[in-house]
Parts: sequence; C-alpha cells; structure tokens
Amino acid sequence: MTNLWKVSTDTFVNEKESIMRMGNVYQIANGYMGYRGTFDEFGPDELVGITIAGIFDRVGDSWREPVNAPNGGYTRLTLDGSEISALTSTVKKHAQNLNLENAVFNRETIYEANGKTVTVNSTRFLSADKPNLGVIKFSLTTDKAAKVKISTGIDCNIWDLNGKHLVNLKLEQNEGALLVHAVTNELGKKVAVAEVVDASFGKATHEVKDNRNLHVIEVDTEAGKTYTFYKYFAVFTENDHVASVNEAAVKAVIEAKNAGYEKCLSNHNAEWAKKWAYCDVKIDGDDEAQQALRYSIFQLLIVAPVNGSANSIPARALSGQVYKGAIFWDTEMFMFPFFLYTYPEKAVELMRYRIKTLDGARRKAKTESIGFEGAFYAWESQDDGDDACTYFNIGDPNTGRDLRTHFRDKQVHISGDVAIAMWEYFKLTGDDSLLLEGGAEVILECARFYFSYAYFQKNKNRYEILDVIGPDEYHERVNNNAFTNMVTKATFEIANATVAYLKEKHPAAFTTLVSKINIEKELPLFVEAEKLLYVPQPNKEGVIEQFDAYFKLRETTIKELKAQMIHPNEYLGAGQGLAVPTKIIKQADVVMMLNMFKDRYPKEIKKANWEYYEPRTEHGSSLSACAYAMVATEFGNIDFAYDYFMRTAKIDIEAKYKVYVGTIFMGGSHPAANGGAWMTAVFGFGGVQSTAKNVVINPRLYKKWNSLQFNMIYKGDRFKVTIGQDKVEVIADAANKASHTFVISGQSLDTAPGKTLSHAAGAKSLA
Amino acid sequence: MTNLWKVSTDTFVNEKESIMRMGNVYQIANGYMGYRGTFDEFGPDELVGITIAGIFDRVGDSWREPVNAPNGGYTRLTLDGSEISALTSTVKKHAQNLNLENAVFNRETIYEANGKTVTVNSTRFLSADKPNLGVIKFSLTTDKAAKVKISTGIDCNIWDLNGKHLVNLKLEQNEGALLVHAVTNELGKKVAVAEVVDASFGKATHEVKDNRNLHVIEVDTEAGKTYTFYKYFAVFTENDHVASVNEAAVKAVIEAKNAGYEKCLSNHNAEWAKKWAYCDVKIDGDDEAQQALRYSIFQLLIVAPVNGSANSIPARALSGQVYKGAIFWDTEMFMFPFFLYTYPEKAVELMRYRIKTLDGARRKAKTESIGFEGAFYAWESQDDGDDACTYFNIGDPNTGRDLRTHFRDKQVHISGDVAIAMWEYFKLTGDDSLLLEGGAEVILECARFYFSYAYFQKNKNRYEILDVIGPDEYHERVNNNAFTNMVTKATFEIANATVAYLKEKHPAAFTTLVSKINIEKELPLFVEAEKLLYVPQPNKEGVIEQFDAYFKLRETTIKELKAQMIHPNEYLGAGQGLAVPTKIIKQADVVMMLNMFKDRYPKEIKKANWEYYEPRTEHGSSLSACAYAMVATEFGNIDFAYDYFMRTAKIDIEAKYKVYVGTIFMGGSHPAANGGAWMTAVFGFGGVQSTAKNVVINPRLYKKWNSLQFNMIYKGDRFKVTIGQDKVEVIADAANKASHTFVISGQSLDTAPGKTLSHAAGAKSLA
Repeated sequence: MTNLWKVSTDTFVNEKESIMRMGNVYQIANGYMGYRGTFDEFGPDELVGITIAGIFDRVGDSWREPVNAPNGGYTRLTLDGSEISALTSTVKKHAQNLNLENAVFNRETIYEANGKTVTVNSTRFLSADKPNLGVIKFSLTTDKAAKVKISTGIDCNIWDLNGKHLVNLKLEQNEGALLVHAVTNELGKKVAVAEVVDASFGKATHEVKDNRNLHVIEVDTEAGKTYTFYKYFAVFTENDHVASVNEAAVKAVIEAKNAGYEKCLSNHNAEWAKKWAYCDVKIDGDDEAQQALRYSIFQLLIVAPVNGSANSIPARALSGQVYKGAIFWDTEMFMFPFFLYTYPEKAVELMRYRIKTLDGARRKAKTESIGFEGAFYAWESQDDGDDACTYFNIGDPNTGRDLRTHFRDKQVHISGDVAIAMWEYFKLTGDDSLLLEGGAEVILECARFYFSYAYFQKNKNRYEILDVIGPDEYHERVNNNAFTNMVTKATFEIANATVAYLKEKHPAAFTTLVSKINIEKELPLFVEAEKLLYVPQPNKEGVIEQFDAYFKLRETTIKELKAQMIHPNEYLGAGQGLAVPTKIIKQADVVMMLNMFKDRYPKEIKKANWEYYEPRTEHGSSLSACAYAMVATEFGNIDFAYDYFMRTAKIDIEAKYKVYVGTIFMGGSHPAANGGAWMTAVFGFGGVQSTAKNVVINPRLYKKWNSLQFNMIYKGDRFKVTIGQDKVEVIADAANKASHTFVISGQSLDTAPGKTLSHAAGAKSLA
Repeated sequence: MTNLWKVSTDTFVNEKESIMRMGNVYQIANGYMGYRGTFDEFGPDELVGITIAGIFDRVGDSWREPVNAPNGGYTRLTLDGSEISALTSTVKKHAQNLNLENAVFNRETIYEANGKTVTVNSTRFLSADKPNLGVIKFSLTTDKAAKVKISTGIDCNIWDLNGKHLVNLKLEQNEGALLVHAVTNELGKKVAVAEVVDASFGKATHEVKDNRNLHVIEVDTEAGKTYTFYKYFAVFTENDHVASVNEAAVKAVIEAKNAGYEKCLSNHNAEWAKKWAYCDVKIDGDDEAQQALRYSIFQLLIVAPVNGSANSIPARALSGQVYKGAIFWDTEMFMFPFFLYTYPEKAVELMRYRIKTLDGARRKAKTESIGFEGAFYAWESQDDGDDACTYFNIGDPNTGRDLRTHFRDKQVHISGDVAIAMWEYFKLTGDDSLLLEGGAEVILECARFYFSYAYFQKNKNRYEILDVIGPDEYHERVNNNAFTNMVTKATFEIANATVAYLKEKHPAAFTTLVSKINIEKELPLFVEAEKLLYVPQPNKEGVIEQFDAYFKLRETTIKELKAQMIHPNEYLGAGQGLAVPTKIIKQADVVMMLNMFKDRYPKEIKKANWEYYEPRTEHGSSLSACAYAMVATEFGNIDFAYDYFMRTAKIDIEAKYKVYVGTIFMGGSHPAANGGAWMTAVFGFGGVQSTAKNVVINPRLYKKWNSLQFNMIYKGDRFKVTIGQDKVEVIADAANKASHTFVISGQSLDTAPGKTLSHAAGAKSLA
C-alpha cells in the first residue's frame, strides 16, 4: 500500500520542464517562505527559488513581484576534481520524497564520475516554529576512497522573472556564519540571509566565487563511510521589524546550530502535529482521493501566513513569482473557508491583510477609470494593496502584442468577495473583534464603492451594475453579471447588517467609525440599494442569464472553438478572443454564484443552471471544476462531482496543469484548487454548511467512500465529524464552551461539550 | 486654362485598380441609378455597375446589398473577326471626359487590330428628367474598309459583391426592344431592363449569347466613314409602382427612341441647368479649388434622390455596392446641409426616408442588445430601416478572422443625428409639414430611445450615456462621449421644443400623435433629462475630454502607431486595434461636436480643442478633414482650413483614397466628403450660419480667393451671396415672399425681396 503521508518518486528526468514541475510538487514552505523542490546543487536555470512572503519589488517597467532570497541551501560537490551535478553527471539512482506529515523533503541520489560513485542524502525543512529558519542535513558516501570538495553556502544567483531585485549585495563572513545582505531595488528594504555549517570532518576554508558565498570543505573520503554535515540558514527582511536583519539572521543560524538538528526537527514536528490534528480529512475506502486531498491540505498548511504577519496567500502560493505573488479573490473564495473551518488564527491573518491594504483599495477606487468612492480592492494585490495587475496582462502569441484585458479595472466583484469573507468570519466564529479592528470599515467602504459604481435605470426603477467582468473572464465589460450583482447585493446586505450590529452592540465604536469615514449620509442609500439592486432571475427554464444579452451570443462547442485556434497558447478572451462572441465561458460563473449563495436557490434552479452552463464551460481556470463539483452534489450528480473533485484535488500532486496563458508563464502551485478540493469534500460530499444559527449537515457521500472524517471549528468550539454511508457522528470537544445546534439530515440536534451525537440517517438516505 | 466644367484624361491604364478608380471618377448618375465610368465593352471584372437606388437583396448569409441592373449600355465590336476591347486590343489613342454641366460621359478610343484601326466615340447620360432612362450615342470609324460586327444590348453578367441577386432571369425580345426581366432573390421584387437601338446601317439580327441579350449589326465599313447608332435603355423595378415593370421599361425605351437622342439630351440638359443655377459655388481666383468643389457638388447632384422616392444617399452613393449601399449618419450630418441650403426638395426626401424607416428603427431598438424603447436608427440603413451592419463588420488581415465591432449596437448617436436634421429642416425652411407627416413622431421616438438608454448616477445627480461609440470609431464602448451626450441632449431639447410647438400650433395633431405612440407620461421625463443630462465640459485648459478617462489613454504619435502595424490594411480599432489603448482617434469627434454646436462654445474653446485633438487624429475617415477645416476657420487658422478643404474637395476627383479597411473592399465615391467640401466653403470660408431667427455671415475668405459666390435658400426665399475680400453682397430674389435678417459681420441688415445688400466689412476685417 502506498504511504498516504508521502509523495515520492524514484525517477529524475533531466529536462527543464520536468525539473520545473517537480520543483512545484516537492516544494516546502512555512508561511514565511517557500523553497522549491530542487536539488542542492541547482541554480536559477533549474528554478531554484526561496520566495519570501509579503515582500515585493519592481525593476524598471517590469511587473512588481515577490522577492526571492539568495539560496542558503546551496551545496555542490566535486569528486576527484569533477563537478557533481544531476544536470551533467551520470545519475545512477535517485529517490526523493516529501513527507506530508511534517513538510520534510528528502532525496538520495547516487552520482557516478571517474569510475566512482558518491551517494548524496539530503533532508531539508523550513522550520514551522521558527519561520525564518531553514535546516538541512546533508550526507555523502563514496564507494571508493576519493577526494571530495564540498562547496556549501549561499548562492546569490537568483531565479527571478523580472529581477534583479536585490541590489548592493554584500557577501560576508560573520562570527563563523556566512552572511549575505542587500536591499530591494525599489523600496530599499533590507534583506539578509545567513548560513552556518556544522561539519565534523574535513578542512574548511571560506570562498566567494561566482556570486556565491561559500564554505569549502575538503575531505579525503574512506570508501563506504558516510560524512554528514548540517546547514542552518535564516532569512530576514525589514518586514520582520528587527533591529538589524543582518544580526538577526546570524543570531538565528547560530542559535539553531547550537540547538542542533534533532532539536530543530522535533520542535518543527511538534508544530506540524498540531496542524494535522485539526486539519486532516480522512477518507476511508479511497486511497487515491485520500492522498490527493491530503496533499491539497498540505499545500494550504505550508503557505498559511505566519501569525501576526497580516499576510495573505498568493494565487501561486510561495512556489515562485508567478502571477506577481499577488493575492486574488482566490484567497477569500477558495482558501479562506478551509482556514475559517479548521484554523481560524490563519483566517484572521487573511482578513487582516485586507484591513492592512484598505488604503490601497481606497487609492485604487479614486484613481481607477473615472474614479470611484470607497474601496475597490486590487485584482492582484501585493503588500500595499495597490493593483499589480496591468492593463495589458496577457500576451498574444499570434501577433506578439500585449492584449488589453480589463481584469484590473472591471473585475469589481473582488471588493464584495472581501466583504463577504469578513462577515463570514464574524458569523461563524462569533468573534466581532475583527469587525472592530477594521473589518467594519472594510465592509462599509466596499458598499460605498459599489454605490458609486452603480447606476439607476429609471424606466426599470432599479440599480444596475454595469461594465464588469465576472468570474468568466472570457467575457469582459458585461452588464448585470448575475454573479457580480449578487455579490454587490450581498455587500449592501452585509453593510446594513454591520451598521445594525455595531449600533446595537458597539455604539461608541460605530459613532467613531461613521465619523472617521464620514459615511452617515450614505447609509440610507445602502438600504435603498439593497432593496432596488437588480439581480438577474431564472428564466422559464430556470436558467439565470450570466449577463445582459448572454443568451444572444453564438452557440458553439468547445471543440469547435478550439479548432479555430491559430496558436495553442492563444488566449480565448480579451477583445477579440475566440470565446468572446460565443457562449463558451472560462469557468463557473452563475454556478459559482449558486454555490456561494446556495441558501437562496432551490435544487431545481441549481440543476437547471448546472446543466445549461457545464457543457459551455471550458474550465480554463483551476477554480472552475470544484464549483461545478459542489453544485453537482446538491442535486445528486455525485459521480460527476467525484470526477471534478479528483480533477481539483490532483492538480498539484500530478502537476499536469498548463503553464502558459498567451505568452505568460504561470506554472506553480494552485492553492485555490487545493482549497476547492477541501470544500468539495467537506461542503460537497460532507454537505456541511455553517450559518450564524447552526451547522447543517446533509451528507451525500460518494459511493466508494466508507466514511469521511474531519474536524471543524464553529463559534470557537471544536468538533470531530464522521460521516458514514449510514450515519453521521459528531463529537463535541470536551473543552467546548457552549452547546450548538447541528441540523443533520434535517434533524436538529444539540452538541453539548464532550457529547457525541450519532445520527442514523446518513448519506444513503439523501444521495 | 482648364475647362472647369470638365474632368478629362487622355490616358487609359490597363490595370484593374486604375480601371476601378476611373470607374468612380467618371461615373454618372441621376438619383435613380448610377452608372460607373467604364467602357462599353467592359463587364463585371472591370466593375461595370448600374446600381439602382433603394432596392436591396440578400443572398444566403452574405451581406444584404443594393441590386445592380443588367447593363443595358453594353456594346462590343469585332473588326474583321477580331474582338475589340481595351483589355486585349492595342489602344492607340484614348481620351475621355465627364461634363459636369450635364453629367454626360464621353470617350473616344482608337483601337488597332489586324493592321486596321477603329475609332470608337461613345457618349452617354442617365436622363435627369426621366430617371429610368439611359441614353448612349455610339460612333465608329475604321481607317480602312473592314467587316465590323457590333454586338450591343443588355449584358446580364453582373458585377456583384455578394450576388447573385437577380433570379429567374429572362432574356427576351419585345416590340423590337430587348427585354431582360428577373426577380430579386430575397424578396422576389421584379426588375426589368429594356433596350432599343436606333441604327441606320448594317444588317441586324438578334442573339442571346454568354448571358447577353444582343442585337448583332454587321456592316462592311468604308474607310473613314463614321457609323453612328443610338441606344436607349430603361431600368424599372417594383419600387416604381408601375403596373408592369416589363411593359414600362419597353415603353420607356421606345418612347425615347421616338423622341430621339437630341430631344432626350436637351430635356436632360434643361434639368441640369436648373440644378446648377442654384447649386453652383463660384470661387474666383483659385481654379483648382473651383474645379474640385464643383466636382464635389456634381457628385451630390447626381445622387440626389428622385422626387417622391423617399430614398436617401448611401455612404458610397451609387458608385457600387460598397458599404452595402447603406445610409449612415453621413447623410444627415454631411450631405443634408447642402440640400437644405440649396435644394430643399431633395432635403425633404432624405428626411422622408427616415420617416419611412421609423418602424425599422423601432424594431432595432426593441431587439438590439437588451432591448430599448423608441427609435434606434440603423447604423447602416437600407430600404426597410433594419440594420445591415453586422456585428463582425471588419476582417482582420493579420489573422483572417472577422472582428467584432460595435458600430451597430453602440453607435447610438445616429438617432440624434436624424432628429437634429429633422428639426433643422423645420428651423431653416419654416415648413412644418414634415413634422406633421411623421417628423415629430421620429423626434419623439428618438428621445424615447435615449431615455431608455440613459442611466442616472445618484451620487452625481445626473443622467449619463454609457457604452457608446462616438464618431471616433477607434474607441468603442466608451462612456459619456462628449459628442454623443451633446447629441442626446439636443434630442431632448428638440423633443421638448417639438412638443411645445405642436401643442401651440397643431393641438389636434399633437393629441393624435401622443395617443398613437402612447408617450404622454414620458414627456416630463424628457424635460428632466434635458436638464440633468451630463455633457462633458472643458477642463482648465479648455479641452473637453472625448469620453470618460480618455485623458488616461496612452500618449503616442500616429507615426509611432503605424510603425507597429503588421499588415498595411490592419484596422486600428475594434477590441485590440493598435489605436484602442492610445489617444489616437480616427476622426473629428469633440471637434465635430464643436462644429455642430458652434453657437454654444466660444472661439477659445474651439481653438483649444482643435489644437489638442488635431495632432491625435488619424483622419481614417473622409468625414474628418472638413470638420477640422470648418472649426479652423472659426478661430482664424485659415491656411490649415484651406489645406483640409482641398483634401476633402479633391477626394473623389483624385481618387487616391484607400480602398481597404481590414479585409473589406470599400472603394467608391465619398458623398459625405463632397458635402463636407461644400460646407467648408460656405459655412467655413463663407462663415454662413442660418438659425431660426436669421442668417449670420462672418466671412473669412482664404487669402488667394478674390470672391466666393453661392446661392442659398432660407425660409423658402432665395439669395445670391457674394463674398469678396472686402465686402459681402446679398441679392434677395425678386420673387421672395418675405424680408429676412442677415447679420453680416455683426451688423443686422434687412433683405427685402429684390433688394441687394452690400456690406463693406468683408473677410479681411474678420480673418
């Protein structure tokens, strides 16, 4: 049987694309930084990347993107004077694995040169308890006595998409540690990497060569004897708010060396044990699904922001600089629910990030197009909340020209997505501190933005939301997109509810806020807008038109459309894209809306829209499949849901995704799909939905599954839920503070602390 | 000195493109039909075309376009058995001319074959008094005795862009006349062409061969002797409302033959003398300008609709099927003023055409996009007022794909253009019959359309017009286009004025109309909309932003832009066109607005906008230069105005225009530019502006001109105006019914019938 806690391979393919994809699959991260799954001896050409969360830089007119740190994990050997590298040497044998339990990457590679072999075994992790720290255990064994030179240290040759981001780079030695420090090109932010080696053999010297700061250890090896050394590296930036990033980095590695490898690892493991204790989902009876889902959850856990950082998770997480390291709606709509249900202290960081960047959203509202009021969140948000999305965000391989896309200026649903997540946090945790610490301000500013964006149609006596892009990005600048209008309406509802709540519970804070943002006169308008905002309704057949006049677009098939492509990477949207005049959509749009607002629509409407839109959906986004899967579970198409669940859950473990859109490289991991896999399991097959009042569970397990087990947090209390084919069991943690209502398959049950509910009506009765 | 009444050449270039361009320059027409300036022996490959006004047909999915008639002017010779044709024979000498005085085309060509020459002299005209009739005098002379066979008759091989439009084609003989009759493919409309020959030599037989219905006349010529015959052809369609198109056609040619060539010609000439008596403009001191302007006026006169036809003038007039023979805003904004000032009975037809097609405009409003109220006139209007414009109106030579353009669905200013012309007719003629016969209904339905199209912005307390294309078609789907908003505002003003006028003067008609179109409740909304409609205002520098956020577009130069073109015919607009993200505009837009609404803006604003927009204008439309020229005269840039006037006036006589936009052939004549040339002369250099109250003349003659003389009609009375460098003379016709006020260079003067005003302050004092 496969080890469902490990991802492994015994193959190394010496090709650029394979190395790129493996770098994604075997990446490790700890929220502070990511480290791609590359070999110790690799460099920028093999896309070695240590991507730091929350620090960005821009060079010239190029895209602003996250900063990659110099590689403190670098080690290269020579064997009897010959360079050893998987790229140029003979690899006799290779095996590598990633332990999902604790995010430890290990590989063992046997290289051959000059008739001798050297076996390298390298284990590395980014500390879960000390987020600035990386630790590596490196062993080598030659089959015959040999002269081995180990060059290990910090490689300052950095893989950048739009670098060079680090300037004034200094390579130094400091108290036995190597130190590299620099400042970012744009804002002059300090960055330091320190590294120290603990080796009990050989003769060590210091060398700076080829932009690398190195220890050189020379050793005459005995045949068959294993030589092990330990590396500790630390990354600090000015965002860490330490007195000196240089000193902090050096201190961190020396402390780690003094503590020793085993201690570092055990502290790290203890943190990981806590994570999994609450975040794992167990699928009994389907190992493939189990491993894919666990890997998806793992991907979310490794990139969850460091507590107190007010960072969020970029669309390609920490797997590199793709998509500018920017935060999209993906985070709120696809990742946030996982954290909200299992790891609220991380959900808080995601929301704090939006509070932190509220001023950026205000700046964007003021300056975008004709200027608007309130908060228009960035489509691609970085550290300051200004929009990293360009107006020409995709290249056209047919003409070599950049395409004007309207992602940045028209994808206005982002503000509502933020407001909805903010309110969802309050609703499901019962914790109003976030509202008081800026969340309410975010919500009101989002409503204010929509009001300034909305138009009133006098003949129809209604507000409309014009000229937007919904989730289906193939159709730009559409009017009354059902998804966007619904999100807008929800934002007005939430703003009005926020006002009512604060007035009642926190009148002083309410007065302060209203005066701070001078919004009193506008509040009645939000009430009117909630009432008079137009949301497209189902037609006779139950289908909701995606946007005004969508039904008039040309009917075609995806196959027919693709047959017209001139270039295989040609983008199907933007201005004159092939999909634009047709009904073919990029991803779930109306169906995504039905999933987000599932309470408001009956099963038949979900079914009608699902059946209408699914064949017209190209699934050109990794966000699409899980939305269709979740809605499919609602009306009983469980087999379909399972296929799309698997497609979503396996995206990163299989790494078969496309890596180009137009001329833009977009390879990397897919945390939104990872979150979508978790949602499909728990919300879809588990049928779980938490509301302000209660937790509803209407299970519809996939037939192959014996049971689905997960933990969830509701209003601060913890539950272990097991859904079998014939029964649902809910164990309320003994430490819970209150009793809550679970409505299981229609029956209201009470979950007092420490109590176990067992409800016989299980999945079968409802599937 | 050149004969300023003739256009001539002694060159024949045997190349397709030259033949195409010459076909335009030497075309004749009489409002009922056009006949391209091609040789008697030419066929469809040389773009021989007899395009009939007001009858359209569609084949399959192709564009609907005007019907070309079988060519009743066809004649081909053989000389001693050898085919004679300018395409295949040696042309020893050739000369051709077009007489602008009477629209008679003549050519003399000496062909050589088998060591002999034959001189052909052919003269043709389309009767100005009998619009169905064409007349040809054909002479031939051989230098040596020879056997000549003349095949003359009706060629049914028709040049069509998207044919074949005529089906059930029958080639017959009837009472000595040849008859071809058929029905149109789409609507089954009957079309007949008859032809009769009057030849007093040779032996005649009848032959039907190669889809031609022919008389064959064989003659053994004597050397040097001239053989002359006359051809009469007539075209009738079901639109003529005759009992039988076949009989009417045959009757017409027999009657013409009986009357004889000279009689036909003298009747024709008499009509032409009347036209020129009132429509000519004399420029003293500038022959080049004189000829170009006269040629422009000639172009308008030949295509002026037949009285009572309720036809209008297509964008390429009757020079072929280009632009689908459709009527655009060009007619109202660029041609209509010429007719309104000089030939009101033709201006009436243009307006009747819009009344006739009101139902089409209503259909379009209802069905376009999400559906609107009122009348949304077709961007490309044919016989029924439905829109001939497609959603994919331009091909992209880079990809071979059709481009989605929004000309049809977003160029909403067309309705206002119609309403403005309708009102202008009433204002300047004082004749309210057109209003009562449907004009008022048109106006109110246009206002109704705009109200249903408009949105109200609550924060700004104003109506806005969103998502349109202004005259600058390179920028599609813009908001608050200054031109469109102003036209919309004017439409509401006109609607409100119409209501006030009818209420006062024709209360019963008003009541009937209001009840017929059920508009009473909406009338107060039009008053509110007039008041609260947003029209972009000048900024600090006096510049009016062309549309929302235009100022944020990329600054570039036309040269820089064109350097990026991949294909020379590449369209610069639509979706991803090169001009779209830049400030480069296709044609006068704000400046066109300033020209149309010149009363509302001071000179400094005109200057500021002219100076801002002119360098950013690509002049990709023949409508552009004259707008810039006219506004330039207003603030004293007379030299520039002259250059652009000449560019406009010479467009068709020089025929150097581009003939492709994208992959679309658009060669043909430019009646809008012809009208623009007249406007630039009279309104620009003449400084004439008629208002409801008076006629204002603020002359600013070009320095080279000694004087500018023209006739004009105001409130049904006639005036001859002569503007010299130092004086203005206005002669009121003795038959005038009333006295009118002329404000010349600021001085109010009275023009009693028969009186001559002479005002010493002329151009110089104002230039």
